[in-house]
Amino acid sequence: MITPGTDRIGFVGLGVMGASMAGHLLAAGYKVGVYTRTRAKAEGLLGKGATWLESPAALAAASTCVITMVGYPKDVEDVYFGPSGIIQNAKKGSLLIDTTTSKPELARRIAAEAAKAGLRALDAPVSGGDLGARNATLTIMVGGDKAAFDEAKPLFDIMGKTTILQGGPGAGQHTKMANQIAIAGSLLGAVEALTYAKKAGLDSTTVLSSIGAGSAGSWQLNNLGPKMIAGDFAPGFYAKHMLKDLGIALEAAREMGLDMPLLAMAEGFFQKVCKEGWTENGTQVLYRLYEQAQGSAR
Amino acid sequence: MITPGTDRIGFVGLGVMGASMAGHLLAAGYKVGVYTRTRAKAEGLLGKGATWLESPAALAAASTCVITMVGYPKDVEDVYFGPSGIIQNAKKGSLLIDTTTSKPELARRIAAEAAKAGLRALDAPVSGGDLGARNATLTIMVGGDKAAFDEAKPLFDIMGKTTILQGGPGAGQHTKMANQIAIAGSLLGAVEALTYAKKAGLDSTTVLSSIGAGSAGSWQLNNLGPKMIAGDFAPGFYAKHMLKDLGIALEAAREMGLDMPLLAMAEGFFQKVCKEGWTENGTQVLYRLYEQAQGSAR
Repeated sequence: MITPGTDRIGFVGLGVMGASMAGHLLAAGYKVGVYTRTRAKAEGLLGKGATWLESPAALAAASTCVITMVGYPKDVEDVYFGPSGIIQNAKKGSLLIDTTTSKPELARRIAAEAAKAGLRALDAPVSGGDLGARNATLTIMVGGDKAAFDEAKPLFDIMGKTTILQGGPGAGQHTKMANQIAIAGSLLGAVEALTYAKKAGLDSTTVLSSIGAGSAGSWQLNNLGPKMIAGDFAPGFYAKHMLKDLGIALEAAREMGLDMPLLAMAEGFFQKVCKEGWTENGTQVLYRLYEQAQGSAR
Repeated sequence: MITPGTDRIGFVGLGVMGASMAGHLLAAGYKVGVYTRTRAKAEGLLGKGATWLESPAALAAASTCVITMVGYPKDVEDVYFGPSGIIQNAKKGSLLIDTTTSKPELARRIAAEAAKAGLRALDAPVSGGDLGARNATLTIMVGGDKAAFDEAKPLFDIMGKTTILQGGPGAGQHTKMANQIAIAGSLLGAVEALTYAKKAGLDSTTVLSSIGAGSAGSWQLNNLGPKMIAGDFAPGFYAKHMLKDLGIALEAAREMGLDMPLLAMAEGFFQKVCKEGWTENGTQVLYRLYEQAQGSAR
């Protein structure tokens, strides 16, 4: 069991998500050591009692539980593997938890390498975004060993609201991929429905009041639809991260021999969105791509 | 104003939807005349006081308000147009309401022809399915004149829960198309998410418990997902009707010069579903098409 005040939790990656998550652990009384590439991002937590570590290796050596929330699968590989990685430097018996949305295959590799080194690893990607991280209402999808999951559960409960063990190593990442695929469908449906409504001369907001509550309703339509209509493309969930996630899902699907036309279409759309330079916009910026196509077709 | 006990409402089309809707009007004290192709379908309502009319023409001549709920745009044309159609036989000033999901362009034609004949027409397609019709919780999306809408509103309130005037003639049908497009997206997303989850070796029901409540959540995922997992393809909303609706939406989109790749993909999928002979299944049978593709790929 990981004990507040005794064990040290090491947290790697203090972006918007990671900083909130580490902050909750700190507030709950845990000793938290932190490392992130840009030290300035750690200042807030250091002011609240977190300890700075100079590298993932130093952090791993000083912790009994390491939690990572970095950007891309490549970043995950960098912090876990190699002579200066977490696995080679962690104390025997340590628990490693990667909350980055990353490749299922990579999660399995981390679990296997961790086991060889006498460590336990969980993949535990989250959904719920900035707001979910800040309010500790994240959904956490976990893959790995049941005993390790049980040990980590009190930490998950501090950072999120719904935490479910989905299976062995990689199952958390696979569940997150299923989540992103479902999102892609509802998002594309919302975009095309509102594009159609506008072109048909309807009042899109009035349309939403008819279609949002019934069988056409979705979180995407009801939360992002009004933003699309308003031309508000500020990020809730970044377009660049959607592209990353859909790319991972598509690769994993292909490795399993699955033909996923909707997923492939959605991934293609986010490639276009990112080529337009809209990487830092929210995913609802896809609506703008449709608007632009209308403009050029006129 | 259409008055219970004085005016007669004529109802054409007593399928599962129409029979429930006409029944609510009857129960509310309206005099209801009915016509439907298969007379046996009228027996229940006749036993509750409805009057049988031998043809749409006879029904129109005997009513001050005519409501239609038939199958396809072709059926709508048949009952409204020509010498034995509703428009040529309705009493001057009558209100015509088509609740069939049909072509926006046809709704505009009916409204124009009706106006020439001294009648008023509304297009008022519904969503909410069998259950919504039975429980009078339908969402009714209306196109047409505001005065006609106000006159019809008490009738809509008897048959449905949320009735909104979306604009002039055809706007009800266009709104319904936007509704079906949003449904198509969420449905495809749900199908691919659960296909992926199964192939990845996850427990699909446990996956739903992680992804159903957050930003991936949709009516389609949460209501049809469990049916897909259970292999329960009993109809809520018929695959053949989805094919009809998506075909209408695609045609309308193309007439407006809109490129709608998701809609086109969904329509193509339902063509395949119907070619498999699964016309009388619910729309969730799309999941079976993906399962079948998996089977043949193995």
